[in-house]
Amino acid sequence: MQSYPSKLLEQAVNELAKLPGIGRKTALRMALQLLKRNVQEVESLGNAVIRMRNDIIYCKECRNISDQDVCSICANPKRDHALVCVVEDIRDVMAIENTGQFGGVYHVLGGIISPMEGIGPQNLHIDALVARVATGTVGEVILALPTTIEGDTTNFYLFRKLAEFNLKLTTIARGVSIGDELEHTDEVTLGRSILNRTPYESGLSRK
Amino acid sequence: MQSYPSKLLEQAVNELAKLPGIGRKTALRMALQLLKRNVQEVESLGNAVIRMRNDIIYCKECRNISDQDVCSICANPKRDHALVCVVEDIRDVMAIENTGQFGGVYHVLGGIISPMEGIGPQNLHIDALVARVATGTVGEVILALPTTIEGDTTNFYLFRKLAEFNLKLTTIARGVSIGDELEHTDEVTLGRSILNRTPYESGLSRK
Repeated sequence: MQSYPSKLLEQAVNELAKLPGIGRKTALRMALQLLKRNVQEVESLGNAVIRMRNDIIYCKECRNISDQDVCSICANPKRDHALVCVVEDIRDVMAIENTGQFGGVYHVLGGIISPMEGIGPQNLHIDALVARVATGTVGEVILALPTTIEGDTTNFYLFRKLAEFNLKLTTIARGVSIGDELEHTDEVTLGRSILNRTPYESGLSRK
Repeated sequence: MQSYPSKLLEQAVNELAKLPGIGRKTALRMALQLLKRNVQEVESLGNAVIRMRNDIIYCKECRNISDQDVCSICANPKRDHALVCVVEDIRDVMAIENTGQFGGVYHVLGGIISPMEGIGPQNLHIDALVARVATGTVGEVILALPTTIEGDTTNFYLFRKLAEFNLKLTTIARGVSIGDELEHTDEVTLGRSILNRTPYESGLSRK
């Protein structure tokens, strides 16, 4: 699969192969499908990604992706602006919004600390979070980061940064997934879920 | 994963999700990765696909994708222009070229007959093949189409179209893959490979 009969095709394959999870074979399949589609369709794909990259705005409150200066969540007066949930990226915002269980606002870090990928605290929207907390309007910060080493590192970094402020700092509950058998739960999760056991509340446990 | 906080993001996700094998979750992951890349990189992706679609040329001899009127294979005087290998698309040309076993030229149909996908003979470069054969310069046509029902249908259609001409019509050999165990070969292939047995040639069998 090395020699392409056309430079134009090769360039398109090279560019498509830079997308995450796309190898050269899949990129070639994509390019051939695009060649079969009409010109307008391909232009609307190409222009949609360029327009998104050029014109997208990040909410100046929470740094979430937005079309306005302030996103619809931050602009909503019915939401609790004293309760801030810190997440890695927009996908987490969408996932939490889908649960319908959260009435506060978000702060999107835009990633987590990962020395392996060269992402340090200065690459994330951490200063903006500290500035937000420093205004004194925030009562509780919920850390909702991935349960990985990188997530734990970021949690600890944020804990140190926010320690000087008078606020409640929490993390989302970690434990056995609802609907899971204990025997299929990994040891670390099961062990932690015993250490961090909570008082039994009838009716809530199966919710 | 339904409500996007940005129309620009949603449009890009919608367009990316039209690529083959890409669902909405993968498209969102792609869009977020593009947002992290710099503007020039995203523009070169967008423009590469648009430029490919607008400027690509199909070789007027074999209908393969090309940057010139006649592709490098058809323009090569060392290749046997009387031996034409009929293939579905450019990936097959690349695969056969990689074997280094074929010294003839190609004819790219641009697909195979598939009523399920609404592809009929009129959507393929079949008339061009017939016109090419009608010039009388072609001595042998090798049908190298997929070993599927659609491939067999297309083979039969081409056989009928080319029957009136004085030429040798062959298909690529079908049988047990080299390196395969007989017990793991499917019945149809194994049955056919017994029916279509070939004289034993020592030295060639393991090549």
